[in-house]
Amino acid sequence: MRTLLLIVDNGDEQRVASSHPTLIAMLEALTDTLEDSTRKGDEAGVAEHSDDHQSCESREKGQWNKQERKQKIKIEKAAAMAASTGRTPEIRKDVVFNKWVIFSPARARRPSDFKSHSPVNPNPQTSYSSSCPFCAGNERDCAPEIFRIPDSSSSDWKVRVIQNLYPALKRPEHHIPDPSPNSNPLVLSGIGFHEVVIETPNHSLRLSDLSPPEIGAVLLACKKRIQQLDDGSVNYVQVFKNHGASAGASLNHSHSQLMGLPLVPPTVSARLDSMKEHFDRTGKCCLCEIRAVELLIDESSHFFSIVPFAASYPFEIWVVPREHSSSFHEIDIETAIDLGRLLKIMLMKLSQQLNDPPFNFMIHTCPFQKMLQKS
Amino acid sequence: MRTLLLIVDNGDEQRVASSHPTLIAMLEALTDTLEDSTRKGDEAGVAEHSDDHQSCESREKGQWNKQERKQKIKIEKAAAMAASTGRTPEIRKDVVFNKWVIFSPARARRPSDFKSHSPVNPNPQTSYSSSCPFCAGNERDCAPEIFRIPDSSSSDWKVRVIQNLYPALKRPEHHIPDPSPNSNPLVLSGIGFHEVVIETPNHSLRLSDLSPPEIGAVLLACKKRIQQLDDGSVNYVQVFKNHGASAGASLNHSHSQLMGLPLVPPTVSARLDSMKEHFDRTGKCCLCEIRAVELLIDESSHFFSIVPFAASYPFEIWVVPREHSSSFHEIDIETAIDLGRLLKIMLMKLSQQLNDPPFNFMIHTCPFQKMLQKS
Repeated sequence: MRTLLLIVDNGDEQRVASSHPTLIAMLEALTDTLEDSTRKGDEAGVAEHSDDHQSCESREKGQWNKQERKQKIKIEKAAAMAASTGRTPEIRKDVVFNKWVIFSPARARRPSDFKSHSPVNPNPQTSYSSSCPFCAGNERDCAPEIFRIPDSSSSDWKVRVIQNLYPALKRPEHHIPDPSPNSNPLVLSGIGFHEVVIETPNHSLRLSDLSPPEIGAVLLACKKRIQQLDDGSVNYVQVFKNHGASAGASLNHSHSQLMGLPLVPPTVSARLDSMKEHFDRTGKCCLCEIRAVELLIDESSHFFSIVPFAASYPFEIWVVPREHSSSFHEIDIETAIDLGRLLKIMLMKLSQQLNDPPFNFMIHTCPFQKMLQKS
Repeated sequence: MRTLLLIVDNGDEQRVASSHPTLIAMLEALTDTLEDSTRKGDEAGVAEHSDDHQSCESREKGQWNKQERKQKIKIEKAAAMAASTGRTPEIRKDVVFNKWVIFSPARARRPSDFKSHSPVNPNPQTSYSSSCPFCAGNERDCAPEIFRIPDSSSSDWKVRVIQNLYPALKRPEHHIPDPSPNSNPLVLSGIGFHEVVIETPNHSLRLSDLSPPEIGAVLLACKKRIQQLDDGSVNYVQVFKNHGASAGASLNHSHSQLMGLPLVPPTVSARLDSMKEHFDRTGKCCLCEIRAVELLIDESSHFFSIVPFAASYPFEIWVVPREHSSSFHEIDIETAIDLGRLLKIMLMKLSQQLNDPPFNFMIHTCPFQKMLQKS
């Protein structure tokens, strides 16, 4: 089965799942400015992605072309209109996470309602802040570094992976045994890794301001760290980004976080169990079946992005690999840059449509445990 | 097995579970002012609840007395201090919901950090607002009424249950068949009930300002409506309250909501599955085992309130029935008033300690389906 790679959602979590814009409005907002976004992306260093090129690739790789996408949006729009007229809500199943989500026309809000009134993270004017521990030059103010990219760099690093100064988990100490091994089956020792990936030395840049190769370098840093953590004590590595204070970011300087956990998080277990159950029952991978029902936003050589059929959050976006692939850390350089390009476009669209809103994203990969079972 | 009745949590959801005050700090904040709260509660109509009375009852009913509670807090405090010194986080299992929660001393925040800087719902000065559809006198501005308490009342009602003007679910129409029965197994028609319980005709009162019999009347209105909805099309009735805009409340006037759902929500299924699994494995009801591990805040004749051992939210409180009881709608008048009294004290404490913070609560009961299986 393939692994769902990246889920981006608007950081303003809605407590009532049913209160969000209809999917079609989300899709329109995200595809409307596709050309503009791509053009702006190109200016910022995104590779050419012309219609001809796309339709040529689409024949080979089974991609949808723009015509097909527009047709799809038209059909969904008609269905949404019909549903809205009849005012009959739907309850949709998310097969991947095994949950149901209510979609109610009566509670639909216009996407403009989700716009931030003022940008949450106004782009700082300065590329260096003396009080920011993540800025190049202030490395001594940080918790210890694990590695930097490039390895040999001094002040001219691109990405740094460091320990979290306020870690949720304690790093294992190989020399000193755990003072009080816990006999309570309801308690595990919180041994693990909680780290920060500083995505750029520049204080004023957001992740979406970086070029695809630069975003690729951030993803490759995560890959490298996940590989290093596959040493026995860790069962799952959770990679996530909080952008904006209300989405949980405590520092403005662009960064992601990485947690090496001694257990598999419930959302990951639920996803794996649900996908396995679907596979056992139907013989099919439910991520392969997605494109028949979900709403395509964009695609690249190795990935496609969708608004999921049963989205729980306003402006939830999934980025899914085309090929079956279970482990994020098997990604190669070319694929990482390709993912960087698609992720950049998605984040630029979110930012444009919602005025730089808070958001979270998370990389969903498979547990190490599973890797061991396979081999 | 008994049913967990009420979960109250601070409406400011923390995205990272590990970032919250240590349980002991929460417990201290909630028990510190117990005497004050009780005294204030008495002034507002809460029945006398003296030490003598309590210790007498405690012998009969197996309740903890204050001495025992203080001892328990002391032990927990010592354990928390020790853990904090060693800075070793713990990962605790919530057996009821089958999830793990990280507790990290390094990320602990003082409870005062959770205080609202200004009350979210400043108590309006006036008992009537001409623009509020929930105020007595403005009944015509509301969606249709289902019933009121007392039944025969005109302008002097105590509680009203009305339809939600923006319902997430569509009420079933018995005369007209569903126009497009859905053949997609991933889509259910959103047929159900979404209603509002107006807890008081008075615009300026919060739920915690009401007397225990008045809160009891609100709970009995929910009971009555759940009973009415047990007619086949509904599988589960979810009762919840959002207090404060950031917790999802769109109107200031004190109200709860009630959703009659055609399916069982995932959190309810997870709770039932996990409790059943525990029972099958150990022969014990895990809510009965709670008091050995959880942290008692307060208790009444029929209920006790705790800070759960593996709390996910800051200031999460569970109110649990003493006796095995699966269905909220089996509650009788005396028990409803007793629950009203305990709930009032819990909400007053939250309000005092955190400066009237936003909060949510939810009544967890068993699905109708299960009732049918039992009979």
